[in-house]
Amino acid sequence: MIRLASKDIKEAIEKDLTQEVASLKASGVEVCLAVILVGEDPASQIYVGSKEKACERLGIGSLVTRLPKETSQKELLALVKRYNEDPKVNGILCQVPLPKGLNEQEVIEAIDPDKDVDCFHPFNLGLLAAGAPRFMPCTPFGVLQILKRSNIPTQGKKVVVVGRSNIVGRPLSILLSLKGWDATVTLCHSGTQNLAAECAQADILVAAIGKPEFIKSEFVKPGAVVIDVGVNRVEDPSHPKGSKVVGDVDYDAVSTKAQAVTPVPGGVGPMTISMLMYNVINAARFQKGMPPFQL
Amino acid sequence: MIRLASKDIKEAIEKDLTQEVASLKASGVEVCLAVILVGEDPASQIYVGSKEKACERLGIGSLVTRLPKETSQKELLALVKRYNEDPKVNGILCQVPLPKGLNEQEVIEAIDPDKDVDCFHPFNLGLLAAGAPRFMPCTPFGVLQILKRSNIPTQGKKVVVVGRSNIVGRPLSILLSLKGWDATVTLCHSGTQNLAAECAQADILVAAIGKPEFIKSEFVKPGAVVIDVGVNRVEDPSHPKGSKVVGDVDYDAVSTKAQAVTPVPGGVGPMTISMLMYNVINAARFQKGMPPFQL
Repeated sequence: MIRLASKDIKEAIEKDLTQEVASLKASGVEVCLAVILVGEDPASQIYVGSKEKACERLGIGSLVTRLPKETSQKELLALVKRYNEDPKVNGILCQVPLPKGLNEQEVIEAIDPDKDVDCFHPFNLGLLAAGAPRFMPCTPFGVLQILKRSNIPTQGKKVVVVGRSNIVGRPLSILLSLKGWDATVTLCHSGTQNLAAECAQADILVAAIGKPEFIKSEFVKPGAVVIDVGVNRVEDPSHPKGSKVVGDVDYDAVSTKAQAVTPVPGGVGPMTISMLMYNVINAARFQKGMPPFQL
Repeated sequence: MIRLASKDIKEAIEKDLTQEVASLKASGVEVCLAVILVGEDPASQIYVGSKEKACERLGIGSLVTRLPKETSQKELLALVKRYNEDPKVNGILCQVPLPKGLNEQEVIEAIDPDKDVDCFHPFNLGLLAAGAPRFMPCTPFGVLQILKRSNIPTQGKKVVVVGRSNIVGRPLSILLSLKGWDATVTLCHSGTQNLAAECAQADILVAAIGKPEFIKSEFVKPGAVVIDVGVNRVEDPSHPKGSKVVGDVDYDAVSTKAQAVTPVPGGVGPMTISMLMYNVINAARFQKGMPPFQL
């Protein structure tokens, strides 16, 4: 069984991205990401910190605006507008979830689609659904990069994606069935009957449901590739912190049957920020009329 | 075996839509569709004629602009802009395919998303992919109406959609997996292996591939519902015209196994224009700040 850790893949991609940032800089193009964080959600603070660090690592400029949780929708939209109009800002990201009372969808739709590096704006999701994506949804594209760089072909393969979220499951199911990836994709969700039997048909099984260690051995066909997108914190008295992070897949049980499994942590998770950086670089390229940098 | 003809469903829907148009008119809201036809493609001329007739039948105003095939992209975009800015025009539709040399995608993206009654604009496709559709893609929504009004539930059912076009297969696969419809959907296409076996798992099988009578008996599980979206003209010396229209499903062969099959002609096809009229009415409602009329 192959443990599909993403460390080497992430490093190889970030090396390419760092070179691309340097090459853009040499031709006079500075790349810059603006991040908006509203409130004090601890997880969001960690995510935003990681994004700042990734920008620094790659030579991308970052502007982080931290707003109090009492910020009004109007103030938030005004800041988005300022970043939309600022030619030095290539990409804009508003960390979600927003504090209660703020309208997330309105903020997403207020971001200029040309600067929507999360690929959450309906216009960019629609380009994806029409088979001509411009930005790539970060976590789904991270999954595709793991598959591609681990030499796991998707063409003609049966893929089952479990979970229909707007951020992972649905966009990944669309991407995998596009020309080029050419998988036969089944999207499963909370309303699916005989879920284990559906999953057990998959050559490639993707778990993105947010239920700790939900995918057991009987969900997996012998020899399948299993991609675990889950990040769940569960209690564990044996750990110094009293808790640990596990995926949506029961790794130990599934390992005995699968050909390859992504671990949690160290699998899909770390890829997401690198894919965000990829989108920021392409935002800068698109804004200069250049074609996308390809991974 | 039930022959799922759409005549009665279409009539019932159009009766509701006619009442809604009259009720909007009574409150001072006129509904109007602008149609652009470039060139002399015979099929396009017939489609545009049918759309004009449907508008007339329902009390919706229609403006049809017929342009010569030599029309430039610039002239076409200028006309779209004029309709975008005309407050009397609620919906705009540019009949596709366009003559060679014209950029279809640019024209689609030039239409104000608020008037995009074909639901081809990336913004509207994206709202659909995000689970919050505003306009409905016409042919896919026609399929959903046939299912709903024939009391064929989709919740928890296994649906296989064959064909990944941007107009039918992909948007229908997305719609059916959204909350509310809750089907477990597999999207098959030209790259799918063991297509017959995939299809034979379906409780509801949708054929949208454009290959005459391609779906045979072995593609169908006993008791399945089969929806035929295909419209293919094939030679037939026994017909007065020397040809006839058939679907993507071998109707006679499949009838012996399926619980219900939509015929061609007389099944999905006639629904599309009624769903277009539905979108035109909702465009008028949205532009007045009203919620959608629900079918």
